[in-house]
Amino acid sequence: MRLGLEIVAVTGLPEIREGDDLGPLIASGAEASDVQLTDGDAVVVAQKIVSKAEGRTRDLAGVEPSERASELAHGLGKDPRLVELILSESVRVVRAERDVLIVETRQGWICANAGIDASNVPGGETVALLPVDPDASARRLRAELAAVADVSPAVLVADTFGRPWRLGQTDVAIGCAGLEVLDDWRGRGDQHGRTLKATTVAVADELAAAADLARNKADGVPAVVVRGAERWVTSDDGPGAALIRRAAEDDLFR
Amino acid sequence: MRLGLEIVAVTGLPEIREGDDLGPLIASGAEASDVQLTDGDAVVVAQKIVSKAEGRTRDLAGVEPSERASELAHGLGKDPRLVELILSESVRVVRAERDVLIVETRQGWICANAGIDASNVPGGETVALLPVDPDASARRLRAELAAVADVSPAVLVADTFGRPWRLGQTDVAIGCAGLEVLDDWRGRGDQHGRTLKATTVAVADELAAAADLARNKADGVPAVVVRGAERWVTSDDGPGAALIRRAAEDDLFR
Repeated sequence: MRLGLEIVAVTGLPEIREGDDLGPLIASGAEASDVQLTDGDAVVVAQKIVSKAEGRTRDLAGVEPSERASELAHGLGKDPRLVELILSESVRVVRAERDVLIVETRQGWICANAGIDASNVPGGETVALLPVDPDASARRLRAELAAVADVSPAVLVADTFGRPWRLGQTDVAIGCAGLEVLDDWRGRGDQHGRTLKATTVAVADELAAAADLARNKADGVPAVVVRGAERWVTSDDGPGAALIRRAAEDDLFR
Repeated sequence: MRLGLEIVAVTGLPEIREGDDLGPLIASGAEASDVQLTDGDAVVVAQKIVSKAEGRTRDLAGVEPSERASELAHGLGKDPRLVELILSESVRVVRAERDVLIVETRQGWICANAGIDASNVPGGETVALLPVDPDASARRLRAELAAVADVSPAVLVADTFGRPWRLGQTDVAIGCAGLEVLDDWRGRGDQHGRTLKATTVAVADELAAAADLARNKADGVPAVVVRGAERWVTSDDGPGAALIRRAAEDDLFR
């Protein structure tokens, strides 16, 4: 018997616009992609389409940069209007050096540019912000999938973050519903009966990373189904990706 | 047509001992797990079995802690002999606070405890160190697979690292052969013709994370095959996971 997972791209979704209900669109996209969604699946949705559906896009032409944003932008070589948006979406600047602006977002994520970017957003100067509450977005999408397709898969909202110390970016979960986001093995024994000291599997982030392998940054496959992760799928929505945030007082790098 | 990947656990490997050739063991394990290895596959191997095969285990009973190790261990609440090993495997201490010791290893990785741990290692006080050169380990394993099974899949050596800012650990690649470890989309256009500014997919790390989902920390599935990633598999061994290391002068968090 094979033990494992399957990762399938959901293709053929239309360009998402403000007000679109993602649940029906993803359900029909899955069907067209030959994926019959089940309760044990994990549906990983790109933050970008969630933001678009929720109207979380901004035209830079309408942004008036503050003096602080202008100063910061000058030092970083960034567009002052973009920096204004980044600051308005942040509670704290973690690093502003060279051309890098790393902040703590209102949602509690530490990432570059508050997760704001322009790729795969139509319109010359339009950028997408993170959803206001990505866990709520995931819960809403899960409820929509239950309503239109009578399934309760786990739902993840994934975004692409850089990492200190390592080059390249990986996808991580910024929103979740119906998933055991952290699988805590501490205290359980290994195969030799020795206690595992510090292994808590970041399941949600590993699912997001796995799903990214089925994407293509250019055509922006907006949804991916991971099958075989049913041991982490829960019937209740649970605490969501908020659980992944390390408390500031426990963090050695901010 | 379905677009996607498949992740399959290779089970049934024996307990690995120093001097074991992993290639033949993984090839026969794959066969027994109903996986016919192909050139387009990525074989993700747990660091632990590579270290065991290479004799990179140490019995703490034989370690004499230095004064510096003893002092550091006292402050951190750790075993001085373990701290001695950690320091001997490191070029620099990045953080030593509370019970956390984060170092830069001789291999150039920044991680807790220099990647040394005791889980899934038999023997009451035996711990496993990282392979001396995990990229060389991956190349060797790839050559062994070519010799015994006439295939040249990508080979990755994966370890479990924590992250700043996010709770839980994910698997990352510390060694690679035959893989495009970073897939650089910078300069290429998105679906709206807008240039992608800063997206370099950390393919090796995402493959390692994906493979971890097919594991189980207790029984320690030591090898996982990821199928469907052939677009990143290369015929030459390439620069390996060393490419992922961010240069100290480009890093804002060390």
